[in-house]
Amino acid sequence: MRATVIHGERDIRFEEVPDPVLSTGGDAIVRVVASCVCGSDLWGYRGVTPIAAARRIGHEFVGIVESVGADVATIKVGDFVIAPFYDCDMTCINCRNGVSSSCLHGGFWGQKDRLGGFADGGQGEWVRVPHADGTLVVVPGQPDPAFIPSLLSLSDVMCTGHHAAVSAGVGPGKTVVVVGDGAVGLSAVLAASRLGAARVVAMSRHEARQTIAREFGATDIVEERADAGVAKIKEMFDGIGPDCVLECVGTEESMDQALRSCRPGGMVGFVGMPSGGPKLPMPFLFYNNIGVRGGVAPVRNYIEELLPEVLDGRINPGRVFDLELPMDQVAEAYLAMDERRATKVLLRP
Amino acid sequence: MRATVIHGERDIRFEEVPDPVLSTGGDAIVRVVASCVCGSDLWGYRGVTPIAAARRIGHEFVGIVESVGADVATIKVGDFVIAPFYDCDMTCINCRNGVSSSCLHGGFWGQKDRLGGFADGGQGEWVRVPHADGTLVVVPGQPDPAFIPSLLSLSDVMCTGHHAAVSAGVGPGKTVVVVGDGAVGLSAVLAASRLGAARVVAMSRHEARQTIAREFGATDIVEERADAGVAKIKEMFDGIGPDCVLECVGTEESMDQALRSCRPGGMVGFVGMPSGGPKLPMPFLFYNNIGVRGGVAPVRNYIEELLPEVLDGRINPGRVFDLELPMDQVAEAYLAMDERRATKVLLRP
Repeated sequence: MRATVIHGERDIRFEEVPDPVLSTGGDAIVRVVASCVCGSDLWGYRGVTPIAAARRIGHEFVGIVESVGADVATIKVGDFVIAPFYDCDMTCINCRNGVSSSCLHGGFWGQKDRLGGFADGGQGEWVRVPHADGTLVVVPGQPDPAFIPSLLSLSDVMCTGHHAAVSAGVGPGKTVVVVGDGAVGLSAVLAASRLGAARVVAMSRHEARQTIAREFGATDIVEERADAGVAKIKEMFDGIGPDCVLECVGTEESMDQALRSCRPGGMVGFVGMPSGGPKLPMPFLFYNNIGVRGGVAPVRNYIEELLPEVLDGRINPGRVFDLELPMDQVAEAYLAMDERRATKVLLRP
Repeated sequence: MRATVIHGERDIRFEEVPDPVLSTGGDAIVRVVASCVCGSDLWGYRGVTPIAAARRIGHEFVGIVESVGADVATIKVGDFVIAPFYDCDMTCINCRNGVSSSCLHGGFWGQKDRLGGFADGGQGEWVRVPHADGTLVVVPGQPDPAFIPSLLSLSDVMCTGHHAAVSAGVGPGKTVVVVGDGAVGLSAVLAASRLGAARVVAMSRHEARQTIAREFGATDIVEERADAGVAKIKEMFDGIGPDCVLECVGTEESMDQALRSCRPGGMVGFVGMPSGGPKLPMPFLFYNNIGVRGGVAPVRNYIEELLPEVLDGRINPGRVFDLELPMDQVAEAYLAMDERRATKVLLRP
């Protein structure tokens, strides 16, 4: 089959790789219907994270089950499935605690898994899925093609934005500021709005993204950044800041802005993958009672909650996709996102 | 009057200072009935925090109102009152948000206050209390002298332990580990137990403190520290750790132990004043979804919840006092705590 391989900085190729083979009894092979490029994929692409050796890439996909191992009980051939951006068994204690992203037996796409096999990357024609019964979520029936972008967004960005909101304790009546206007930040706006926030501020200076943010329920847009952004936010919320800040970037600057925007006693939910390992200033948190919670989103624990709202059209998180390409043009997909010509690119094999 | 003044490292004196005078209309003068020494007072005493100039010290007291300013509406002469370890108006937005320790108009004992007056230190014979209606909590009637240690504990340690538990989301059925066996750590054990935790582990190697911890509801005692302590805790809780860890020390080592003990998706509640400004490792928090919340406890927002349980004997947080001295022996009180001969010393003028 063909799949995406990153060979080094700015070197993305769609090339021949070995076909996946069932090997553990609990696995399934899924034919990918749609995949996409993640903001975090750009880290290797841009050389922020060095690429030691060529490796498979991509961790978001939806598709149709083509075959299942002998021990698979619930997933059936022909099912249309959503894969979270990792595999997990949903039976270990971390999965049961709602933190399937820390599954004791799971792993990440494009890597050797803990059962000794290889979990293919998501930007390919087929993927062998370990722990198929745990990992995959079946979409009832065969979905209308119009829903595919939104279903695909449940693989990662929509559930990740939701995790930022849940981690920050967003609920009815809360005031919320979202730092970051990428696909995750926009999804966090939708998640906060869906959870009943009274006011949701999107920090963005890109017109197209502002438009989506408003569609997703943003009540205000703030274009200022850094000190000016913090000052503007404080001014908007009684001089003290909002209840919740959702950090959806992952740089030291964005986390600093998030922390300084939050009101005393408030909460920062963070899902931006920490780039370069910023550290949090304890005395600042201590003297302002600002809490910090978040991390690798346990999207598998959220998909079933959000899926019905996608299928009945109440939410349309697939709006974050603003470019669609055939998968053999994956290199152009990366370039378009790197150059910020696209927010998020959907790929079809 | 006489009050405690810290002149420098290990130089504590009970000496003549100016009598307090009503000055703002909203203030009150309280005759101190009981005060005490806080673990955080030892920082200046030990030279960890340099003492630039002699200053008044002490921030926990209960007493009887002797006079009130013309604008004081609810506090009456003769009331027996509990003061939180700061003053606050309880009307500003931070107070109303439950974070009175960030009161926009409040301040700390022993310092010039925001209205230009001086808020006396708590280790003295009298204290001028700014924002008396907001700051002070009246104990109904005149309390039985036997309750005074527990009432005094509501000034700080009991409510601070409670804040650690609340910040970590302790509730019915949760598993909890408390790092620190000082007065705050022991209070956190009591708070966690009171909130319905299924299991509360006190980390302590001091027999007397272990005894109090058990009285306060600890189900387990762990004597190991650092790596061995973390390993023991992981082993006790399914190999992953407890739901909540309460950090009640404030050093880099204790915070590190707290973070590494917590289960993925769990929460560290921290109330130990950060000594030397440790920073939190973002990637560790991110990859394990461990949240961190806490800070300067908004004790004024908690006193009214806990007071009835003190008065009906359901909780006895005053058990943390293991030495009582007349206030003119305050220097010995500091020495006894410094040498760990006492956990917490109660002082009577």
